[in-house]
Amino acid sequence: MAAIGTAARAASAVLARAPTAAKAAAVHGAAAAIRARAADILAANADDMATAEDMTPALRDRLLLTPERVAAMAAGLDAVAALPDPVGGVIETWDRPNGLRFERVRVPLGVIGIIYESRPNVTADAAALCLMASNACILRGGSEATRSNAAIHAAMIEGIVAAGLPADAVQRIGTTDRAMVGAMLAAHGLIDVIIPRGGKGLVARVQAEARVPVLAHLDGINHVYVDAAADPAKALALVLNSKLRRTGVCGAMETLLIDRAYPGTRALVAALIDAGCEVRGDPALDPRIAVPAAFDTEWLDAVASVALVDGIGGAIAHIAAHGSQHTDAVVTEDAAVAARFLAEVDSAIVLHNASTQFADGGEFGFGAEIGIATGRLHARGPVALEGLTTYKTIVRGTGQIRP
Amino acid sequence: MAAIGTAARAASAVLARAPTAAKAAAVHGAAAAIRARAADILAANADDMATAEDMTPALRDRLLLTPERVAAMAAGLDAVAALPDPVGGVIETWDRPNGLRFERVRVPLGVIGIIYESRPNVTADAAALCLMASNACILRGGSEATRSNAAIHAAMIEGIVAAGLPADAVQRIGTTDRAMVGAMLAAHGLIDVIIPRGGKGLVARVQAEARVPVLAHLDGINHVYVDAAADPAKALALVLNSKLRRTGVCGAMETLLIDRAYPGTRALVAALIDAGCEVRGDPALDPRIAVPAAFDTEWLDAVASVALVDGIGGAIAHIAAHGSQHTDAVVTEDAAVAARFLAEVDSAIVLHNASTQFADGGEFGFGAEIGIATGRLHARGPVALEGLTTYKTIVRGTGQIRP
Repeated sequence: MAAIGTAARAASAVLARAPTAAKAAAVHGAAAAIRARAADILAANADDMATAEDMTPALRDRLLLTPERVAAMAAGLDAVAALPDPVGGVIETWDRPNGLRFERVRVPLGVIGIIYESRPNVTADAAALCLMASNACILRGGSEATRSNAAIHAAMIEGIVAAGLPADAVQRIGTTDRAMVGAMLAAHGLIDVIIPRGGKGLVARVQAEARVPVLAHLDGINHVYVDAAADPAKALALVLNSKLRRTGVCGAMETLLIDRAYPGTRALVAALIDAGCEVRGDPALDPRIAVPAAFDTEWLDAVASVALVDGIGGAIAHIAAHGSQHTDAVVTEDAAVAARFLAEVDSAIVLHNASTQFADGGEFGFGAEIGIATGRLHARGPVALEGLTTYKTIVRGTGQIRP
Repeated sequence: MAAIGTAARAASAVLARAPTAAKAAAVHGAAAAIRARAADILAANADDMATAEDMTPALRDRLLLTPERVAAMAAGLDAVAALPDPVGGVIETWDRPNGLRFERVRVPLGVIGIIYESRPNVTADAAALCLMASNACILRGGSEATRSNAAIHAAMIEGIVAAGLPADAVQRIGTTDRAMVGAMLAAHGLIDVIIPRGGKGLVARVQAEARVPVLAHLDGINHVYVDAAADPAKALALVLNSKLRRTGVCGAMETLLIDRAYPGTRALVAALIDAGCEVRGDPALDPRIAVPAAFDTEWLDAVASVALVDGIGGAIAHIAAHGSQHTDAVVTEDAAVAARFLAEVDSAIVLHNASTQFADGGEFGFGAEIGIATGRLHARGPVALEGLTTYKTIVRGTGQIRP
């Protein structure tokens, strides 16, 4: 780990000074190499899939690469290469009466450790985002994807080296020894931040063991609150989309809160069930409801808890008690209710009359995301290039000493 | 810990919605109460001092309160109360083609744990900064200052309650049981961030044990690099001020780097010695030098390591190898050298022709500081009210669903 970390630190110093054009060339080159090596990548993936026959269909689907998925991976890299460079951006400037001039500028975080599972495309996505923000990265993928990750990593390195940047900018830990995860988590001084991408078991282990700061993505127990003053058509569309557009994403609605004074409750619940969602809650809402609600559960499936609440105050109290501070939405035509919800619900993302499924870096206009941060420090919500930087303060004087 | 944390969380929800005027009234009220109770506070401090007879003179001086120091503490609170409120401030707004409107606004961090030693004024300063940024705080001072801290805390609470804010906004852990520090460090979900203020032993323990994010303040191994193109008068003034204005502060220069091509080296080193600084390094620089340099040592005393380096490249390499990424300064009249130093030295604060002793929240214009962060995430350098906040993203729609 010390050798890998030291090499990463050296590479990060080169990346910190690399011009935008070199970084973009490296990522475009990696995309081209992935296209050129698609057959190798698919063959490696077929080997991984053959070993992974015991896995659930869902996990196998995450692991699977197809020609279309490889093409999408390469296109994703080209999109990242075209994003504005955050490094060197001036955040703020100010002057002091003694003539000192202050400038706060964005600088890279340094060395980022990515610990991830299953999806081999993370090898490309995460490395490209780290690189465009001038960070070196150390990738540790799941053992089930070892051969796929190795093939994608080899293509990435080809693009990076061709652009004149150091190969150590993106290092991959090839061993499947789980002790290496522990070594990464303990690598204080070698790794500046760990980003886990995977299931709750992985993220929980990382948070419990890490001696290095972690940008973690935990539960999204997200609510849609339909207020008495909601437009029924908007409420219907927003609830269906928030829950069912994709049920496995962290931005999906998990609990529907309905104001007791909302007139369309039965129609709304019936429509949700008709659309294929299992609703859990009070059977008085619909005779097809058979299971009580579980408000602390992130279903990540076509299941939703439903509760009636006493207006906006009841909704805010319910979310404070059961939410995970990820993404929550209010549906109302009452501006005062919306304002109160947006101010008082303490979540990373709060929406008015919009689907919770917009909780995504791409939908935020960031062009990509490395994850959605659910902690409170450094970054909250979708994290893209800016979230992979920190800042320093430059002070320009003319000989000032401090009295 | 659970009861304290739950009470703090409840108080933080009230603070998050408290108007600026109420927070300012609370802090001004606390200042007034400290003035009114000055005799009690001084009596409590006298008891602490009587118990602390074994401590070193430096530690006793940190613990000591005088009428002037109590007055300064109260004046400090009045200054904090007058600072602009960061909460609710809009950081950025943007729109998307689908009509969604995004607004990133500052919100409090939540519950902050402060673990500190000796100086009783931290009880007032830290609590006031947390409160003005709408955070509840849990204070755990050193056992040597128990009675002083209790008296100051009582005065703080008087001001807070009189302003209509909850007493639990500022809780103090009165027991001197060291296990309570462990409980705070493990209070994941109850405490959002821990800020240690004290010696290296305390900060190291906090960093090693914390299961909660930490905003820590570690070594300041700060350099002044005197370039060949330095103005000798500026170099002399800046080196003397950076080292000797106060030797015990984290912004003090610890190592002096001089370009081999700088003509005034011997005069500069001699002046530093004449001013009372013990210089360590090569005796060829001055016959009074008797001890070799130790470039990884933070002296925090009237001692400095000195080294000759090969120009700006040598200075940058030395700082990369031995610095602590805190505060480093270049003295030169050559704009290109200055630009390279400011760009390539990866420290929280980099200065050109200004004293390293400006590494201070007050000198940055922040009005106060809760510490100087030496990590890379969330905040770097002096941390004041803005550093005690995070953000959320408000999304305003008109019924948009995600395709």
